[in-house]
Amino acid sequence: MANKKNAFYAQSGGVTAVINASACGLIETARANKDKIGKVYAGRNGIIGALTEDLIDTSKESKKDIAALRHTPSGAFGSCRYKLKSVEENRREYERLIEVFEAHNIGYFFYNGGGDSADTCLKVSQLSKKMGYPIQAIHVPKTVDNDLPITDNCPGFGSVAKYIATSVREASFDVRSMAKTSTKVFVVEVMGRHAGWIAAAGGLATTEDTDLPIVILFPEVIFDRAKFMAKVKEKVDQYGYVSVVVSEGVKDPEGKFLADQGLMDAFGHAQLGGVAPVVANMIREDLGLKYHWAVADYLQRAARHIASKNDVEQAYAMGKAAVELALKGKNSVMPTVVRKKDSPYRWSVGEAPLSRVANKEKMMPKSFISRDGFDITPKCRKYLEPLIKGEDYPPYKNGLPQYVMLKNVAVEKKLDTEFEVK
Amino acid sequence: MANKKNAFYAQSGGVTAVINASACGLIETARANKDKIGKVYAGRNGIIGALTEDLIDTSKESKKDIAALRHTPSGAFGSCRYKLKSVEENRREYERLIEVFEAHNIGYFFYNGGGDSADTCLKVSQLSKKMGYPIQAIHVPKTVDNDLPITDNCPGFGSVAKYIATSVREASFDVRSMAKTSTKVFVVEVMGRHAGWIAAAGGLATTEDTDLPIVILFPEVIFDRAKFMAKVKEKVDQYGYVSVVVSEGVKDPEGKFLADQGLMDAFGHAQLGGVAPVVANMIREDLGLKYHWAVADYLQRAARHIASKNDVEQAYAMGKAAVELALKGKNSVMPTVVRKKDSPYRWSVGEAPLSRVANKEKMMPKSFISRDGFDITPKCRKYLEPLIKGEDYPPYKNGLPQYVMLKNVAVEKKLDTEFEVK
Repeated sequence: MANKKNAFYAQSGGVTAVINASACGLIETARANKDKIGKVYAGRNGIIGALTEDLIDTSKESKKDIAALRHTPSGAFGSCRYKLKSVEENRREYERLIEVFEAHNIGYFFYNGGGDSADTCLKVSQLSKKMGYPIQAIHVPKTVDNDLPITDNCPGFGSVAKYIATSVREASFDVRSMAKTSTKVFVVEVMGRHAGWIAAAGGLATTEDTDLPIVILFPEVIFDRAKFMAKVKEKVDQYGYVSVVVSEGVKDPEGKFLADQGLMDAFGHAQLGGVAPVVANMIREDLGLKYHWAVADYLQRAARHIASKNDVEQAYAMGKAAVELALKGKNSVMPTVVRKKDSPYRWSVGEAPLSRVANKEKMMPKSFISRDGFDITPKCRKYLEPLIKGEDYPPYKNGLPQYVMLKNVAVEKKLDTEFEVK
Repeated sequence: MANKKNAFYAQSGGVTAVINASACGLIETARANKDKIGKVYAGRNGIIGALTEDLIDTSKESKKDIAALRHTPSGAFGSCRYKLKSVEENRREYERLIEVFEAHNIGYFFYNGGGDSADTCLKVSQLSKKMGYPIQAIHVPKTVDNDLPITDNCPGFGSVAKYIATSVREASFDVRSMAKTSTKVFVVEVMGRHAGWIAAAGGLATTEDTDLPIVILFPEVIFDRAKFMAKVKEKVDQYGYVSVVVSEGVKDPEGKFLADQGLMDAFGHAQLGGVAPVVANMIREDLGLKYHWAVADYLQRAARHIASKNDVEQAYAMGKAAVELALKGKNSVMPTVVRKKDSPYRWSVGEAPLSRVANKEKMMPKSFISRDGFDITPKCRKYLEPLIKGEDYPPYKNGLPQYVMLKNVAVEKKLDTEFEVK
């Protein structure tokens, strides 16, 4: 097939424990359809690789190494935080993309990311029409923030949720043991600047057969210090201890991030801290209780060792479906997870037009947060529970998970023009 | 056997992912020797339970629940931070212990803890002689700090080490993906106020087949800001990114904890922070590099979900050996881990007299820290590697590890005296 087109694949934004599982599904499916699709070129460091014509030839990777992507966290080809401007603002960027795609006979544009990259993907598909260069742009959903619309959930989220639920359970057991003479309050800070999906996962740590006291601070709920302290005290009075799960995005009544307390060091230099120590210090001031605090940061989104099996399977399925949609001639779409049933959990792969995905954030429904603002509702639990189900352990060697580092061989450049990424 | 004695067991100090595995080994072995040993009474909240005659009857727990202790982190009977004073200072405490032991026909005192509790255990055995009440005092080693002498390593440490090595590897993969346009330095704070054993474990994240740039700040090495920044810069120049593992116990040239930087909030109130944000802020000031930081805190020592198999087996073996030593008539001893061979790893159970254990801290040998002070040596790696080997996953239910909560039924009090713990 002489007119067989190559594919471009790039990872965008913050990486996850399972974004490489999507890459795995995509590359394996493309390889299985060699009669219809050429090579898969990956952008080195995401879309920047396309702009600078720095492409990685994934056909140089062994079958075994591509398979190992399924259990390797992070972005194997490098990701970036770089949002293309609008066509009006920087038409040159889009023209450059088309030049690079044309030079490498690329007919498929697979972009693996969140809301911003869905928007970029949409723009590429629109421009390809305008500029007369045919390219099918397919977005592959990924984000720990779980904030893409239409899809029931986003690959990457389930594994963070499992990590947070497990860690909160484990730390709660720890505090429970120590509370008599030592720590009574444990505060853990989790990701999610705009939406409380990850914080909500902390609520899963307590179940009917394992009753643990947990207080959640959601970014959706304005921080009320007095109400919060009353809730902490209530739990400590009842259980002897409490775990507090606080989202990095929690804001005070003035709309300021709680983390941003204007901390200064001894020399008067501004210091950037997290929200966990801020909340812990408040508890010390108001209640005088002994505390410990943790900030999970990258540990949470990189924790492939405790990934959710459902999440890994969905991430793989999204990558696979992206190629299948492309082969069906689809353009400007995103495969989605469609929930068929809560219990036993059943899901299938759907699709959504990018025009309905780009630049739309899915917030936590109000009905997912308890009336007092510190807990999840049974409805939320029903939604979250299937997403953390199942274990999918990576292989270990000498006590450590074995993750693959690809060779990432560069494709020879065909253009003699440079492009400066600003 | 009419003169069959009961046993007392208590958990002491900071708990670990595997201290309950020692409890499991101890209780199961006692149950298997019902002809020689009576009931195992556990102290509720450690030694405080003995002083206040608040004993837990472990015979009320099912076989299944005791077996589940093997995979349950934290201290199932409650622990405490309470060090008995010297006999001269508070003879009444020791007399009270003997009263309680006598009232409940206790002939075996099993104390599961670190250096302080080994000292308590020794004192109890000495006093029992002086006071004419025969009791065999056996110490069961436990500490994430790995600082007990004679024993090759301490149950609890291997699992923290595995958690830290894995987390540093995973987070390093994450930063590696993002470094082109975003985070270049990841700083993670780990436990270990006096000894750098846990920080050293971060060095295991990089191996021959998975080369990662890691800089370690040990409590044994005085913090040299200029030298540290030069090392961070060197790694970022070479790899494009770096992970920094910093022990909570790192001190500046004035001997002050680096974490204790006199942070003030906007109102001039002193704030307690961690050392990770301090180091991260310094990197921002000196090198202008984008960073992220994490504080693992309790997450590290409670992380039973990624416990080391060797650690779990040794923890169980120590509990089992404690009973076996008692049945052999031993007193004032501690079972130990004896290393027979590094690779393949072979170990056996030994024993040490408490007089050689109590109040002695095993520091990291100088030969375990690289000359520049920022890395571990091959000798250190050879020591650490077997300790994190093997996985020992807990059972899961609905996506969460299933940990047991015991019934903890109280033994009826026999004394009509109260004892106030100060």
